[in-house]
Amino acid sequence: MTPIANLNIVPFVSVDHMMKLILKIGVEPFLLELGAYIEEDFLRWEQFDKTARVAAHSIDGVIELMPASDDALYAFKYVNGHPKNTRAGRQTVTAFGLLADVSTGYPILLSEMTILTALRTAATSAVAAKYLAPRHAQSMALIGNGAQSEFQAMAFKAMLGVNRLRLYDTDPSATKKCAANLRPFGFEITACASVAEAVQGVQIVTTATADKQNATILSDNLVGAGMHINAIGGDCPGKTELHRDILLRSDIFVEYPPQTRIEGEIQQLSSDHPVQELWQVIAGRAPGRKTVGQITLFDSVGFAVEDFSALRYVRDKVLQTPFFERLDMLADPDDPRDLFGMVLRAA
Amino acid sequence: MTPIANLNIVPFVSVDHMMKLILKIGVEPFLLELGAYIEEDFLRWEQFDKTARVAAHSIDGVIELMPASDDALYAFKYVNGHPKNTRAGRQTVTAFGLLADVSTGYPILLSEMTILTALRTAATSAVAAKYLAPRHAQSMALIGNGAQSEFQAMAFKAMLGVNRLRLYDTDPSATKKCAANLRPFGFEITACASVAEAVQGVQIVTTATADKQNATILSDNLVGAGMHINAIGGDCPGKTELHRDILLRSDIFVEYPPQTRIEGEIQQLSSDHPVQELWQVIAGRAPGRKTVGQITLFDSVGFAVEDFSALRYVRDKVLQTPFFERLDMLADPDDPRDLFGMVLRAA
Repeated sequence: MTPIANLNIVPFVSVDHMMKLILKIGVEPFLLELGAYIEEDFLRWEQFDKTARVAAHSIDGVIELMPASDDALYAFKYVNGHPKNTRAGRQTVTAFGLLADVSTGYPILLSEMTILTALRTAATSAVAAKYLAPRHAQSMALIGNGAQSEFQAMAFKAMLGVNRLRLYDTDPSATKKCAANLRPFGFEITACASVAEAVQGVQIVTTATADKQNATILSDNLVGAGMHINAIGGDCPGKTELHRDILLRSDIFVEYPPQTRIEGEIQQLSSDHPVQELWQVIAGRAPGRKTVGQITLFDSVGFAVEDFSALRYVRDKVLQTPFFERLDMLADPDDPRDLFGMVLRAA
Repeated sequence: MTPIANLNIVPFVSVDHMMKLILKIGVEPFLLELGAYIEEDFLRWEQFDKTARVAAHSIDGVIELMPASDDALYAFKYVNGHPKNTRAGRQTVTAFGLLADVSTGYPILLSEMTILTALRTAATSAVAAKYLAPRHAQSMALIGNGAQSEFQAMAFKAMLGVNRLRLYDTDPSATKKCAANLRPFGFEITACASVAEAVQGVQIVTTATADKQNATILSDNLVGAGMHINAIGGDCPGKTELHRDILLRSDIFVEYPPQTRIEGEIQQLSSDHPVQELWQVIAGRAPGRKTVGQITLFDSVGFAVEDFSALRYVRDKVLQTPFFERLDMLADPDDPRDLFGMVLRAA
C-alpha cells in the first residue's frame, strides 16, 4: 500500500477511476475478492459497532447514512433512493462512502459507491448462496433485469459457477439489454415471456425488481422444493416482492434482523417469526442448507458492514494503482492551535 | 449561481479553496453573512428534521455524523474528536460536510469543514450574544487561546463591535499566538496571567478550552452581575468548564436541549433544570436578556442546523468563484438501468 504522505490528503476514487479499477482487476476476480472480504467481515460480525440506517424521508424519497466500524476502521455510506429520478435521466440510487482510521478519526478513503454498491450487493448474494443454494447449482432465473441484474449474474458465475440464465422483466427492452451485456461472458441465456417460464427448472431464483410497493413478483405455486430464492428488491418499508406463503414455506436468512424486519420481505410476517442470521451460517454456528428439498430464502436488504468490506477492499487495491485523486480535504496547520493563522497566511 | 451542467459532478471545496474564499470575502463579512444565514435558519427551526449526532466512540476518540434537513436541502457533517492527535501533529477535530438536494437525493456540494466549523461556531456564539449580552458590550475575556479563539474574537467584533480583549491560556505561547493573529484587526489586547485577571471589568466571558474532563475554568466568585458567558468548550460527556454554582445563578440558553443535556455544561444539572432554546429567543417567542444585572449563559455544543446554514452559505458564495473543483462522484449512465454496460463501455 502506497502511504499518503501529507496529513491533509484523502485519496478519492471517482466514478471513472472505479470503472478503470474494476476493468483492470476484471469483473469476476473483483467480485470473488470482494466476496472474500465480505465473508471475512461476516465471520467477525460481533466485532462490529452496528446500527440501523439513519434515514431522512421526504415526499420524493429517502437519504440515508449507513455507518459501521470495528476497532481499527470506520466506514459510512451516503445513499439516496428516489424512484422518480429516472424520469429526469438520474439514477434512482446514488451513493458514495468514506473509510476512516478509528485511532485518529482521519478519513483515509473517499469513494464513489453507486457502482461499488451494485458489486457488493451481488457479491453478498453469491456469498449467501454458497451456503444456501443446492450444491452444484448452475441455473438461475433473474426476475427484474435492471441495473442490479448483470452484477448478480456475474457474481453467481464467479462464486458458484452458475452458467445458465433465464431472464424476465415486465419491460422486454430491459431483458434485451441484460442479455446483450452478459452474452460475452459465456452464459447460456434464455429470454422468457413470464415469471412462470423463467423459473422453470432453475435451482436459484433472484428477484431484483424496482417496484416501490408490496408486489407479488413471485407467487407460491412457482416455488418448487429445493429452490434457493435470492430476494434483493424488497428493501424498504412497503416494498416487497414475494407472496407471503413463500416465506412461510422457506427457511429465511437475513443480514441484520433489526433492519430486515422493517425493510425486507419479512415485514410481511410477525416480528417474532424465526429467521437465521447469515453471519452465523458463515461462522459455522448455524446450519445453512440442511436438506435437498428445503426452500432457502436470502432476504437481502443490504447492510453497512458490506459497505465497510467494499471500501476496505477498494482501499487495499486502489492505492497500488493510479486510479485515485488526492483531495486536499483536511486542514493541516503547522501548529494545530493555529487554524486562524493558517487562513491568514494563505493570503 | 453557476449551474453545474453534468449530473455526475459534485462541486468540492478543498481546504485551500475555503481559505481563498474566506480571504476574498474577508473574515468579518464572511462571519456577518454566515451569522445572517444561521439566524435565518434558527428563525425557522421547526421546519428542520433534527436528530442528535450519530456517534461511534472508541478508546482514542469519537467519530460523529450530524445530519439536518428541511424540505429542500439535506446536510450532514462528518467530524472527529481525538484529543491525542495533536501529539502527532494532527488536528484534534477535523470535519467535512455535504449538501444534497432533497427532491433528487443528489449531492450538490462537498466541502472541507474544519475551518468552516470554526467559523460557524464563532458566528453562532456572536448571534446568541446579540440577544443575550449587555447592550453595547465592547470588552470580552477569552479564556483558552487555541484554534477557536481568534474566530470568536472576530465574530464578536463583526457582529457586536467588541474591540477590547483580555486573553488567558494556561500556555502563554497560545496567548502570544492569539494576540499576534488578532492585533492587525485593531483590537485593544491585554494578555493576562490568570482567569481572575482576564475577567476583570469585562461584559462577556468566552470559555473555549480543550481539557477533556470536568474542569473548573471559571469559578463562581469571578462571575459578576450582568455578565454574558459564552461557554464553548463544554461539548461532550464528561467535559465541562464552568463551576456548577455559576449555572444555578444564570439564565441558560441552549441550541438543542436533547443534545446539550448530554454534552453541555448543563450535564452537571438535573435533567429537568429549565433552559431556554436559543431559536425561540431569535424568533421573538421568548425573551433574551431581560435585566441589566442578569447573568446569561450560552451553553453551546454545536448543532447540525448550524452546519446546514454554513454549507448553504458556502454554496451560495463559492459557485460564483473559481474556488471549487468538479468531482466525478455520481455514476451517470445514459440509461439508468444500464450501470453494468457503462462499466463495460469504459474499457
